[in-house]
Amino acid sequence: MFQYFMRKTIIGVMGPPGGEASKIDEQNAYQLGELIAENNWVLLTGGGKEGVMGAANKGAKAKGGLTVGILSNDDPNRCSEYVDIPIITNMQSGRNYMNVLSCDVVIACGMNPGTASEVALAIKPNKQIILLNDMEESKTFFKKLSPSQIHLVSSPKEAIELTKKFLEK
Amino acid sequence: MFQYFMRKTIIGVMGPPGGEASKIDEQNAYQLGELIAENNWVLLTGGGKEGVMGAANKGAKAKGGLTVGILSNDDPNRCSEYVDIPIITNMQSGRNYMNVLSCDVVIACGMNPGTASEVALAIKPNKQIILLNDMEESKTFFKKLSPSQIHLVSSPKEAIELTKKFLEK
Amino acid sequence: MFQYFMRKTIIGVMGPPGGEASKIDEQNAYQLGELIAENNWVLLTGGGKEGVMGAANKGAKAKGGLTVGILSNDDPNRCSEYVDIPIITNMQSGRNYMNVLSCDVVIACGMNPGTASEVALAIKPNKQIILLNDMEESKTFFKKLSPSQIHLVSSPKEAIELTKKFLEK
Amino acid sequence: MFQYFMRKTIIGVMGPPGGEASKIDEQNAYQLGELIAENNWVLLTGGGKEGVMGAANKGAKAKGGLTVGILSNDDPNRCSEYVDIPIITNMQSGRNYMNVLSCDVVIACGMNPGTASEVALAIKPNKQIILLNDMEESKTFFKKLSPSQIHLVSSPKEAIELTKKFLEK
Repeated sequence: MFQYFMRKTIIGVMGPPGGEASKIDEQNAYQLGELIAENNWVLLTGGGKEGVMGAANKGAKAKGGLTVGILSNDDPNRCSEYVDIPIITNMQSGRNYMNVLSCDVVIACGMNPGTASEVALAIKPNKQIILLNDMEESKTFFKKLSPSQIHLVSSPKEAIELTKKFLEK
Repeated sequence: MFQYFMRKTIIGVMGPPGGEASKIDEQNAYQLGELIAENNWVLLTGGGKEGVMGAANKGAKAKGGLTVGILSNDDPNRCSEYVDIPIITNMQSGRNYMNVLSCDVVIACGMNPGTASEVALAIKPNKQIILLNDMEESKTFFKKLSPSQIHLVSSPKEAIELTKKFLEK
Repeated sequence: MFQYFMRKTIIGVMGPPGGEASKIDEQNAYQLGELIAENNWVLLTGGGKEGVMGAANKGAKAKGGLTVGILSNDDPNRCSEYVDIPIITNMQSGRNYMNVLSCDVVIACGMNPGTASEVALAIKPNKQIILLNDMEESKTFFKKLSPSQIHLVSSPKEAIELTKKFLEK
Repeated sequence: MFQYFMRKTIIGVMGPPGGEASKIDEQNAYQLGELIAENNWVLLTGGGKEGVMGAANKGAKAKGGLTVGILSNDDPNRCSEYVDIPIITNMQSGRNYMNVLSCDVVIACGMNPGTASEVALAIKPNKQIILLNDMEESKTFFKKLSPSQIHLVSSPKEAIELTKKFLEK
């Protein structure tokens, strides 16, 4: 983990885009965004306009946070207007790896194939990964893949409490 | 799917590297390599020296097949000597996305975090994905993520029969 | 160009790393960093510890600016300690494309092979590119490649004046 | 350079796409493709349908060669029908880095921004690079950037003679 003087703490919120995220996923994402901003951490997402990414960015900006979006494409109309700093990769899902590499802690809010790839890709670089979703099969599988790195929570607040603990180490 | 005159059929075998693959994974991978070569398909893997990647390449070359490896790094000593055509990406796990994009059918032999990311990344580009492993949690999870794209088999032969069916479509 | 409400203006400073940058390149980079911060723009570099990247980040932080580094690797010891937000790509020089895609205006300070690749890669995505260096051959070549996008300046101040003009459009 | 038993020799031909390549560039590319195939080397290009990439692949297949295309996108209609093995990256110009990393020798036939980026990106990984074009400014610039790696030729035959010499080392 980066420990330099200037270095900001970056917390990633990964999750399904619009059309795939549930109402609850979006509410959780919004609250995660708020809490991340209140802790003076930078929010990092895949930068999407709707769904979990859009909601997390909206929540973070509602509390005056700073938001980074690692975009899969170069179409400004597909980027959340609540992203302060868009990083344009133009490498489609290939950018999922960078999303998780660039975070101090990864929070997966909801579950879909893209989110699953991000959780899986975060394991090898030794990230701590928090799962907040109601798909039991995803929890069972990822917990089996890496028991020590996968953590299950049932609310945004619990996710943030865990995040604080990981950052203290 | 590419349908041009010259275009070779490319079958991907994804799986854990040396140290993470089981004996059975490696035996299955070797047999998959043999069968892919016997069908005159090109074998595509992540190019690793040992484990599932190494075994699949070895099997394919034993039957005179053509083998492509999409390497995560630029160190020739970490590449299987049974890879005919190494494609060097130098982008570490970021290359997992290209592995699955470049295959007509994806066979996941064994399971670990890298393999899980490849299965997950293959769903959005509409690939047919065959799982050959004994981790029940992985089957349950991926089958739930995309019932129509995930197919469970219990032997290399069964995987190849399924592959043939997908290629006929 | 992104035009959203929150969207910060991002100015890229590209140039040789330590050992390849000249004293003058580093002085220019430091001054560019200062001026970018004074204009309330975000500084984006490749995040390197020394050379043009290190100097630009140091200059920007001296004036209280915000700095983003798109890192080629995942080694925190090779990242400038004046980078606030490190984006970790782990794709070596493959990240050069993202460096330029993510900037509103690209300033190339000094010249080496990596910098040349960044100038070249910025042309297709229609970026305005400012060259500040004393290698006449580079100016002649890039001006020939894209006369309307390549702009020659002889001081950091002139680079910033041009940048302002491009941003007004 | 890879030196394994199975390992095929891979020669890259880089150059402008359709609309940007000159008639002479395309004739040279076609002849390069023929000569590469006659030497039993694998041809590697960016896989484009027309221009230098299309012509090189067509020439190689006319002599029964094996062709690899590293595609910037996932649209089969934009891939040369003379590519045997398409590697799909979906990372747009970000794939230029892989093009040159994966070649034993890089031949740049013609010149445009994309080709310039490939020449520039091939320098750091210590590739030998052959320039075949009539833009004097490009020769002067790249020769200045790396005198020992940049080689100027005036015909496809000369390019192939040089390639043979580099492969012997």
